[in-house]
Amino acid sequence: MRISVRTTPHYPIFVDQWNLRRSLSVVKKNLREDRLFIITNTTVAKLYKAKLDPIFRKKIKTAWIVIPDGERYKNLKTCEKIWLKLAKLGANRSSCLLALGGGVVGDITGFVASTYMRGIRYFQMPTTLLAQVDASIGGKTGIDLSVGKNLVGTFHQPKAAFIHTDFLKTLPFKEFRHGLAEIVKYALMADQGLWKILKTNTNKILQRNTGIIKKIIHSCAHIKADIVALDEKEKNLRRILNLGHTLGHAIEQLGKYKTWKHGEAVAMGLVFAAELSHRLGISKKHLTPEIVRLLKAFHLPTAWPKYSQKKYRQALKIDKKANSFVFLKEIGDVIVKSVTTASIWNFL
Amino acid sequence: MRISVRTTPHYPIFVDQWNLRRSLSVVKKNLREDRLFIITNTTVAKLYKAKLDPIFRKKIKTAWIVIPDGERYKNLKTCEKIWLKLAKLGANRSSCLLALGGGVVGDITGFVASTYMRGIRYFQMPTTLLAQVDASIGGKTGIDLSVGKNLVGTFHQPKAAFIHTDFLKTLPFKEFRHGLAEIVKYALMADQGLWKILKTNTNKILQRNTGIIKKIIHSCAHIKADIVALDEKEKNLRRILNLGHTLGHAIEQLGKYKTWKHGEAVAMGLVFAAELSHRLGISKKHLTPEIVRLLKAFHLPTAWPKYSQKKYRQALKIDKKANSFVFLKEIGDVIVKSVTTASIWNFL
Repeated sequence: MRISVRTTPHYPIFVDQWNLRRSLSVVKKNLREDRLFIITNTTVAKLYKAKLDPIFRKKIKTAWIVIPDGERYKNLKTCEKIWLKLAKLGANRSSCLLALGGGVVGDITGFVASTYMRGIRYFQMPTTLLAQVDASIGGKTGIDLSVGKNLVGTFHQPKAAFIHTDFLKTLPFKEFRHGLAEIVKYALMADQGLWKILKTNTNKILQRNTGIIKKIIHSCAHIKADIVALDEKEKNLRRILNLGHTLGHAIEQLGKYKTWKHGEAVAMGLVFAAELSHRLGISKKHLTPEIVRLLKAFHLPTAWPKYSQKKYRQALKIDKKANSFVFLKEIGDVIVKSVTTASIWNFL
Repeated sequence: MRISVRTTPHYPIFVDQWNLRRSLSVVKKNLREDRLFIITNTTVAKLYKAKLDPIFRKKIKTAWIVIPDGERYKNLKTCEKIWLKLAKLGANRSSCLLALGGGVVGDITGFVASTYMRGIRYFQMPTTLLAQVDASIGGKTGIDLSVGKNLVGTFHQPKAAFIHTDFLKTLPFKEFRHGLAEIVKYALMADQGLWKILKTNTNKILQRNTGIIKKIIHSCAHIKADIVALDEKEKNLRRILNLGHTLGHAIEQLGKYKTWKHGEAVAMGLVFAAELSHRLGISKKHLTPEIVRLLKAFHLPTAWPKYSQKKYRQALKIDKKANSFVFLKEIGDVIVKSVTTASIWNFL
């Protein structure tokens, strides 16, 4: 399955089980030198480097740059290490990176690519469900500062994204369900049909049935590609992708990016958005129970943590989208409205 | 005098003696909130903050972020400080920066602006001759890594550049002549008329005659604006701006950015380019003596330092443009050719 992201220039997303041969052909066609710099983390390297490197090397030379695993390494220090490594390996303006890993690897590789020698090319090859349906599409890159998530970053579209669902076979369930949170978001935001699939195939999804997973990823990638094409730099429409994320980001920050992973925070944020939409009379019916039920079936948390109002207030203030909030009108339909932070924290 | 830089979108450069009122009107028109973040260094702040802030505050609220003065602070640490300060002051996606200072302030402000919350607006108000004729125009932003200059950066055009020549009154002569090196480059590269002006007005220039300085800056800004518009991201034509810079950057690096300032390094690099062009039979006549004479009149060094061949080799290797070299055909005309690094270092 191939989806075209109609940004300038267009780029393709390939969704398949394990069509590495095609991916490498696409990579090779885009290379301007005979080497590909693969950025990955220790966990993915342990699982896949020995397996993938010989396959890659049949087509192109590779240089691996391995960073530590975890959101807490999505920072300047890690970027600096990669920049220095690239310089030492002689990477130049014609060089090209490939992000092999989850969202952290993708975000940081994109940022490094957008800033190394004022911008070089890169590819996305996401290995987690979360990165496959979200971070690898749309060209948002970023790193965290001590005071907030993704405060430093760029918009830099990849040359292509390769989504191979077989990577999910080695993904721990704890990680897998984070992707499910983002998938639930897509359904709530824009796709009633996807919502029905999620509800009626819950067990198959939990068993990681390849057919259904591929279908779901394809739907999500399609939604995201369409939205990104209409609003590449998040001036307007793209904000709807932040459904559940305003509170989600605050929760992640309050847990110092340790207590809560992104998917968990988004799950709680979705419940919060549904509940706030209900209380403010924006949603047509009370959707929270139904949403909570599905998220629970996916083993995701649904009750946001009891940090003090003051802490929430501080955390929400620094968030980039605190002025607009994405409300749920009904399953598959959202609306962005300006809110005072007061109306949010009075409710927390 | 107003020059339009025809990038997407266009932006204006204003060249005048001291028309702050107009500059502030342009700034205000572009602001989306009531505050302007002014990034400057300790030296410029000491000279101008008390004088300028009341004038600015008549029109807009200001927040000053002052960084240390010097190329050695054009690094990640300084960026991080500015990003954190912006976050703490509540800067958001609508916020706008103004770079008030020399090339370092301009490059770092541009980089911070291009990456803070994935890109915010900024203005250039250069205070050194070097920044007025070069760094403030064209949207190249960057910081240095330990292994090379400007290895990390972006292309991010300012909303406008305000060139007020009165800032030059407080510029030490040591700094002033660095700008002259870049001006000589423009003349050699593209403007025979400018070359004649420089030769026949050497004393007036050294006395910083306002009329002639304004005229010269206008010529340089015009040349740069035209080149940038044709090749915003330095894929091709823009490389000619690197006349004298291949060796120049290497010299700066070998001196650890302490021994040689950018202007000095460029001056030596220009002599080198002229001499190499002569030896390889590319220039029509032997231009080196004439160029050396003018550079010496401007109190600039003309003989490149005697670092070992090995050191030069290493320094040239890491430079972004080592593959192409800008040769001088005659005064006002250059040609870009690929060179082996061998042909360069055999000559050194």
